[in-house]
Amino acid sequence: MNNFVYSIPTKIYFGKGQISHLGEAVSEYGSRALLVYGGGSIKKMGLYQTVIDLLQKDHISVTELFGVEPNPKIESVRAGVKLCHENDINVVLAVGGGSVIDCAKVIAAGVCYDGDAWDLVIHPEKIGRVLPIVSVLTLSATGSEMDGNAVISDMKKNDKFGTFSQDMKPKASILDPEYTYSVSKKQTAAGTADIMSHILETYFNNTPEAFLQSRFAEGLLKTCIKYGMTAMESPKNYEARANLMWASSLAINGLLSYGAGAAWSVHPMEHELSAFYDITHGIGLAILTPNWMKHVLNENTVDKFAEYGVNVWSIDANLNRFEIAEEAIQSTRDFFNEIGIPSTLRSVGIGDDNLEIMAKKAVSKGMDHAFVPLTADDVLAIFKASL
Amino acid sequence: MNNFVYSIPTKIYFGKGQISHLGEAVSEYGSRALLVYGGGSIKKMGLYQTVIDLLQKDHISVTELFGVEPNPKIESVRAGVKLCHENDINVVLAVGGGSVIDCAKVIAAGVCYDGDAWDLVIHPEKIGRVLPIVSVLTLSATGSEMDGNAVISDMKKNDKFGTFSQDMKPKASILDPEYTYSVSKKQTAAGTADIMSHILETYFNNTPEAFLQSRFAEGLLKTCIKYGMTAMESPKNYEARANLMWASSLAINGLLSYGAGAAWSVHPMEHELSAFYDITHGIGLAILTPNWMKHVLNENTVDKFAEYGVNVWSIDANLNRFEIAEEAIQSTRDFFNEIGIPSTLRSVGIGDDNLEIMAKKAVSKGMDHAFVPLTADDVLAIFKASL
Repeated sequence: MNNFVYSIPTKIYFGKGQISHLGEAVSEYGSRALLVYGGGSIKKMGLYQTVIDLLQKDHISVTELFGVEPNPKIESVRAGVKLCHENDINVVLAVGGGSVIDCAKVIAAGVCYDGDAWDLVIHPEKIGRVLPIVSVLTLSATGSEMDGNAVISDMKKNDKFGTFSQDMKPKASILDPEYTYSVSKKQTAAGTADIMSHILETYFNNTPEAFLQSRFAEGLLKTCIKYGMTAMESPKNYEARANLMWASSLAINGLLSYGAGAAWSVHPMEHELSAFYDITHGIGLAILTPNWMKHVLNENTVDKFAEYGVNVWSIDANLNRFEIAEEAIQSTRDFFNEIGIPSTLRSVGIGDDNLEIMAKKAVSKGMDHAFVPLTADDVLAIFKASL
Repeated sequence: MNNFVYSIPTKIYFGKGQISHLGEAVSEYGSRALLVYGGGSIKKMGLYQTVIDLLQKDHISVTELFGVEPNPKIESVRAGVKLCHENDINVVLAVGGGSVIDCAKVIAAGVCYDGDAWDLVIHPEKIGRVLPIVSVLTLSATGSEMDGNAVISDMKKNDKFGTFSQDMKPKASILDPEYTYSVSKKQTAAGTADIMSHILETYFNNTPEAFLQSRFAEGLLKTCIKYGMTAMESPKNYEARANLMWASSLAINGLLSYGAGAAWSVHPMEHELSAFYDITHGIGLAILTPNWMKHVLNENTVDKFAEYGVNVWSIDANLNRFEIAEEAIQSTRDFFNEIGIPSTLRSVGIGDDNLEIMAKKAVSKGMDHAFVPLTADDVLAIFKASL
């Protein structure tokens, strides 16, 4: 196990009706809120009005930034920063999924930065003070509600970068599984794949005897497999939505990676796909993951894949190690298919036009410390296998 | 899954040499520390001198309370509160195992309370402000380094009570597995049993579909079983000590019980044993646990025991449910025996003298919401079966 410093200070209000705590959660940090949200879904489900009423009741003034898009754009961040300056905002409230929360995070950091917010996306070390952030989650996927990460795109340059600050961890997040009842089948599947990818990126590591972390990772994967399927069949199954929602937070808040490390491979590859083609992040991850697994399976890695097969997919431990590994990879692919995610890049509109440039950009962010270090040629091979 | 409010703000510095952070961890909260510790073990291993040097380097003044005993006594708490008042203490630093940290917690609360500290032990709701607490852990067992619990005894009255406050959670804890290399075989076994009991007390609950929490609990149990044995055989195996240490914190910091509830049964029973006989807590737990399991196994509970048997002890899932359950209970007993813990109360000097009064006191603290509600007669039967 590696040394680590654990610090997850986000307070989580989890469950039905926990929105009642919104006033106390926000007013502990500020009285002039920037409310950040996406399209109309929070209005359709009545959440927008509830939020407005609760903030009003606690005398919290509200400035709105709406229309934040999936794969949030730097332009939205800049607009938010401007609104904060104009309205002397002292707390940022994100209501939505990971894109909205990511955007809110970089706004909160950007307000306190003397320069363009894009600097903070490509240079995390430039992030200084950050306005306090509170979130209300409506999609189980990115884990942004309990971590310090944010991913922002500049589509003009086909750039998509992840940034991080301990101070961008939300002070409090409200997680009511009922808010995810109306999430579409496609987004439920993509969210489940995103959660599973976060887990797999740290599960497949080279740290000896991060035993406890591996068992937790397997527990979360089993949770996603069981309830991902249930949520597809019964979108209003509370227990399924609850288990997925809590899994989304725990998959990436540090619990799995503290002591184990994380050697991300599939996320940097997928970021290029969505930077070039603006596809749904979780769909891209699900398409790439089994092909990445096949590419990195070898004599050195087979034991970890066999462990994955036995402990997550209940494959017979008495089989040959490579047989278990290959069956586990196939089970992963089958699961994604069963929840309705296609298996090929072509089916989401990606051809072979930009594969080489995307492969080069993916490795330029550093994949030489990954579970299996990858070169641009490796990534290109994985892209091609995924076509 | 139940609703919950998650808040685990303790910062953990985990790993070899993390004591180097002591100065920054303490001075963030105060400049006049009460240093609380037990017997001579921290002096023997050189930790005492390291702590003193680091505090001095950061200009933190030190007042000492030493000699805190296992099953810490209210007299130690009172002595600590007095020292705090006399020396205008503004931060409490506990260096030791759970007993030392528990004592430090109630001292930190007692300083801010206008009355006798025992009130805070029996009336948690009277705990108000609490001085900031920092801990350096030397024993993997109670989880006190990352939770808000403290257990204090008044041996004159044979009283042992647990109290709790969110504000008694340490601000920071330093967990260096190497500090547990010198822990005796007996204490290593007792500590492992204590961790496992914390997990089992929440694993056996009546909350439907706290699936994720159950999988985490099983992961921690497997960690204890694997590395409890390794640590007995190789006391200086770093990975074993590291996995046990991190398991001790995660077993009881709320991660397993948030959303699942906890319906404690064996702890309240054991508290009576140690209140009357001052035995080692973890030993008492290990003796009682299999007998409690046998007592509560029935048609309603068998499925959970079968789940335990299959997922933790890898018992063949195709066997009859009761067969699996009984084999799981026997495996639990065998494991405790294998790490050197005796199976009977008589072997730790407990006869049938006080069984009835202890049974009555155990249920008086409320065991009617336990996994299986227990009456004084039930507890008496479990005590007798454990003789």
